[in-house]
Amino acid sequence: MTPDAPRRRGRPSLRSAEGTPAARDRILAAAREEFSARGYDKTSIRRIAQAAGVDPALVHHYFGTKDEIFAAAVDLSLALPAKELPALLADGPDGVGERVARLFLGFWEDPRTRGPVLAVVRSALTHEAARDIMRSFVTRNLLERIAAQVPVPAPTLRAELAASQLIGVAMLRYVLELEPLASADPETIVATVAPTLQRYLTDPEAVPATGA
Amino acid sequence: MTPDAPRRRGRPSLRSAEGTPAARDRILAAAREEFSARGYDKTSIRRIAQAAGVDPALVHHYFGTKDEIFAAAVDLSLALPAKELPALLADGPDGVGERVARLFLGFWEDPRTRGPVLAVVRSALTHEAARDIMRSFVTRNLLERIAAQVPVPAPTLRAELAASQLIGVAMLRYVLELEPLASADPETIVATVAPTLQRYLTDPEAVPATGA
Repeated sequence: MTPDAPRRRGRPSLRSAEGTPAARDRILAAAREEFSARGYDKTSIRRIAQAAGVDPALVHHYFGTKDEIFAAAVDLSLALPAKELPALLADGPDGVGERVARLFLGFWEDPRTRGPVLAVVRSALTHEAARDIMRSFVTRNLLERIAAQVPVPAPTLRAELAASQLIGVAMLRYVLELEPLASADPETIVATVAPTLQRYLTDPEAVPATGA
Repeated sequence: MTPDAPRRRGRPSLRSAEGTPAARDRILAAAREEFSARGYDKTSIRRIAQAAGVDPALVHHYFGTKDEIFAAAVDLSLALPAKELPALLADGPDGVGERVARLFLGFWEDPRTRGPVLAVVRSALTHEAARDIMRSFVTRNLLERIAAQVPVPAPTLRAELAASQLIGVAMLRYVLELEPLASADPETIVATVAPTLQRYLTDPEAVPATGA
């Protein structure tokens, strides 16, 4: 679901004051809470409606199916990197690894952005429907945008390799909480992984031609 | 649970032919299937016993609690890298990144070893009890053994950074199945990530002193 899809706007209300953009935001916040606390499997439209204090019909009205509200949660959770990343890359190859590493670490360091994205990552790792939704979003809004800025062969594979390093750090540091990685200074991690990202994204020799 | 813990041996039977090492292996195989198919949360001693065709008392007899049978599944699933990795590292720093990358890719490429480890990784990412069990195993049997062979400052942090790259590739290639990474030739991936691992594990400059 893209930010300008009609469903994202507050449509005229059903028949009560519930049908306002504020209610829509409350539903989406409740959905992220529910997906985060219970996982994709155990979250239902009914539970989301209860948590938001609205009628289930209003959840259907704004978001349609459970998959669609999950897609909206993914969209919202990854909106920040999806928005900022292309500009970081457009600034040219010098230091791009460090800029990307710092953006992602900052995103994961902030509990307000970490919680929701952890919820969608966990759901995507454990449920096929959630995985397909997240894969589609990540491909369209992150990987393809990164690849468009990478002026070396196999740009999408390079973007995925960079993403693999970042998601791996996130898993070990924020989910498994392995020490000393979990307590390391964020700048230490930025300094350590930046050359890896720089190599994947810009070094013509980094990815064999067969990987194109 | 270490490979030589008493519980791993077939103890004398309870009172029937069920109580044999073959029954124990069947229970453990059933446990991995159940954890894989249902996740940590929904797997119970009773379901494992049903799937193995034995009495729940026999499951308790061999493995104790659900956490203990999960620990045995982690142990079994990660036995191969836990066994082979230290020797790879002991062969010295030259080419260690490539050897480690090839061992892990081979492990993930083989569906017989991939399925069980995916099951424990998924459980660890979604349930705290499973996470604590896996973290303890990984720290004791992988990270500390790697770190013992790394002759540069901050060896454990370096081992974790190498692990983060490998787990990230596994997540994007085998779980999220992002293309083109999911279909890339394994040797392409080995060639691409080997310098990353080599740098983390052997380059004195790779990790800032503050990360020690």
